[in-house]
Amino acid sequence: MPDITAVTHAQNIRYDKQAEALYIIDQTLLPGEEREIRLTTLDEMVEAIRALRVRGAPAIGICAGYCMYLLARDAWTEDRQAFLRKLTEDGEALNASRPTAVNLSWAIGEMMAVARARLQEPREVLLDALYQKAVAIHEDDIAKCKAISEYGLSLLKEGDGVLTHCNAGPLATSRYGTAQGPFLLAAERGMHIRVFADETRPLLQGARLTSYELQRAGVDVTLICDNMASIVMRNGWVQACFVGCDRIAANGDTANKIGTSGVAILARHYGIPVYVLGPTSTIDMNCPDGDHIPIELRDPEEIKTLWYEKPMALPEVKCYNPSFDVTDHDLIAGIVTEKGICRAPYTESLAALFDDET
Amino acid sequence: MPDITAVTHAQNIRYDKQAEALYIIDQTLLPGEEREIRLTTLDEMVEAIRALRVRGAPAIGICAGYCMYLLARDAWTEDRQAFLRKLTEDGEALNASRPTAVNLSWAIGEMMAVARARLQEPREVLLDALYQKAVAIHEDDIAKCKAISEYGLSLLKEGDGVLTHCNAGPLATSRYGTAQGPFLLAAERGMHIRVFADETRPLLQGARLTSYELQRAGVDVTLICDNMASIVMRNGWVQACFVGCDRIAANGDTANKIGTSGVAILARHYGIPVYVLGPTSTIDMNCPDGDHIPIELRDPEEIKTLWYEKPMALPEVKCYNPSFDVTDHDLIAGIVTEKGICRAPYTESLAALFDDET
Repeated sequence: MPDITAVTHAQNIRYDKQAEALYIIDQTLLPGEEREIRLTTLDEMVEAIRALRVRGAPAIGICAGYCMYLLARDAWTEDRQAFLRKLTEDGEALNASRPTAVNLSWAIGEMMAVARARLQEPREVLLDALYQKAVAIHEDDIAKCKAISEYGLSLLKEGDGVLTHCNAGPLATSRYGTAQGPFLLAAERGMHIRVFADETRPLLQGARLTSYELQRAGVDVTLICDNMASIVMRNGWVQACFVGCDRIAANGDTANKIGTSGVAILARHYGIPVYVLGPTSTIDMNCPDGDHIPIELRDPEEIKTLWYEKPMALPEVKCYNPSFDVTDHDLIAGIVTEKGICRAPYTESLAALFDDET
Repeated sequence: MPDITAVTHAQNIRYDKQAEALYIIDQTLLPGEEREIRLTTLDEMVEAIRALRVRGAPAIGICAGYCMYLLARDAWTEDRQAFLRKLTEDGEALNASRPTAVNLSWAIGEMMAVARARLQEPREVLLDALYQKAVAIHEDDIAKCKAISEYGLSLLKEGDGVLTHCNAGPLATSRYGTAQGPFLLAAERGMHIRVFADETRPLLQGARLTSYELQRAGVDVTLICDNMASIVMRNGWVQACFVGCDRIAANGDTANKIGTSGVAILARHYGIPVYVLGPTSTIDMNCPDGDHIPIELRDPEEIKTLWYEKPMALPEVKCYNPSFDVTDHDLIAGIVTEKGICRAPYTESLAALFDDET
């Protein structure tokens, strides 16, 4: 048995209740260095999310839960309306740190709902309710990732090759992950799946994080540059593409890491199915389609300088650096959630996921 | 007028006849440093081509011409058959330095033909004939690039956006270039073309060389990561794709820098025409289709370590690093040569290019 415990149980986000301290693994330092950093102030939290020290839509949601708890502790005053105003402000600042991932605003919304519901309770009761909610978001993600991984694995058979883009493994979520979860589950069960990991420029989450997590877990992983996906598919090495998601619109259009739409178009050309894997919290039923998903534009310098010791381009060269793109729903063979696998037409299958909640 | 002379007349390959010395600009050091290195021995020549200090199919051909001249000087002996054997051996070693570009073997073949034809002539006559042939290959490329650039520019109109991949500008050829030539010509004429340059991982020829050449020439260039081509096309910013070529098979299948086939598939999806630009010397009529083009596999370490100051992936992670891929002829809207623009069916239009030579 490969030892995948070290990876799948890695505490990418860890709350030490005795010390009332929130720690994250600084993902920007991986794979060279595995270092925990502590988030204490709102500024530190916003910076950590914006700089991708914590990243991956579910992980951002989990982190935001604990952040809101800590912010509530700091915002506390017996004037409950003043407390609520301050917490609302802090939540909005936190939410602005990354615009595309819906899990961030979802988790903040969940925490605010608890704060409002328990607003008249004594301090300890209110804060404890917030803490329990943050833990519930965290534990809920672990359970959901396991379920998503099981459903995802049901789409694969022994010996299959799968191409994946960016990172949607344990570091991006809680345990197992979403798009990478089936590979870890397969490895645990001694099943052989051959994974091709796009390096995912500009920030190399595929090279630094996905190939790191999969290699450590004993998965057969091959790292490629993003522009090699076409030849890998043409070579017949890939039977499916598994990708994560940052926001899914009601019609199935999916925002995910920049390059995902390209992978999906190539896969369509080569007749390979593309599956989007993510928790239902990533589905934004208030968003009708991909045109309504805000696309985060990041600093052009990320393309020209980050990670490089020599200049990659003239300093005066301009860059376009969108962090996400939208994959049209008609390029997606299935959306794999913790509640099962949705198929087209997505307008109906996604809506059905929420039927029991209304 | 932007000053494009500095770029378009850059001596990427320079032969100093008085000193009998061959100099190239070491392209691996760009854009940080513009340094000439001298190639004297066969080992230095092979290393320079293999390590991409000189790169771009036409430039490799030009360089190989001067290399063969220098090798002939060194191989000289009055035993003409011994001389020919040695030059043939050296030519084969030089040819093995990169397997995909047909211009390399083409130029070596041209030089060998002169050596054989003039084999019984006095030393000075034979060597001068070889030198004149090397210069002719060089000057011929300059004229061909200009013609290709003119034909390419005829496909564009004021204000168009064009996406390009890798580098096929002056550094990769002689002057103007092939796929990038129309942009330089447009800039000279005060025409506005908006170029999107793929950075072209793993060796970043697009970032380091294309955006460098275009920026210096006053062209409106925006650098993107390879995986951003899809969103740029979706945004409606691109009216055509211009790419170079390392070998074109008789049916129009085209080997070019890894990622080109992906660009072509995306362009097809978005309804954008893809043009391949290159001299007729890149067309290999002895190669029936793309399946017969050898694809160079390069060192996996290029993906994980080159240009990076921090580790990009675990050292034990394996990589697949093909340097080229094949774009199917049915994805190509036109093949732009110095003799005009070939359209499908390519089996006929490409053959017609060589009609006057037989």
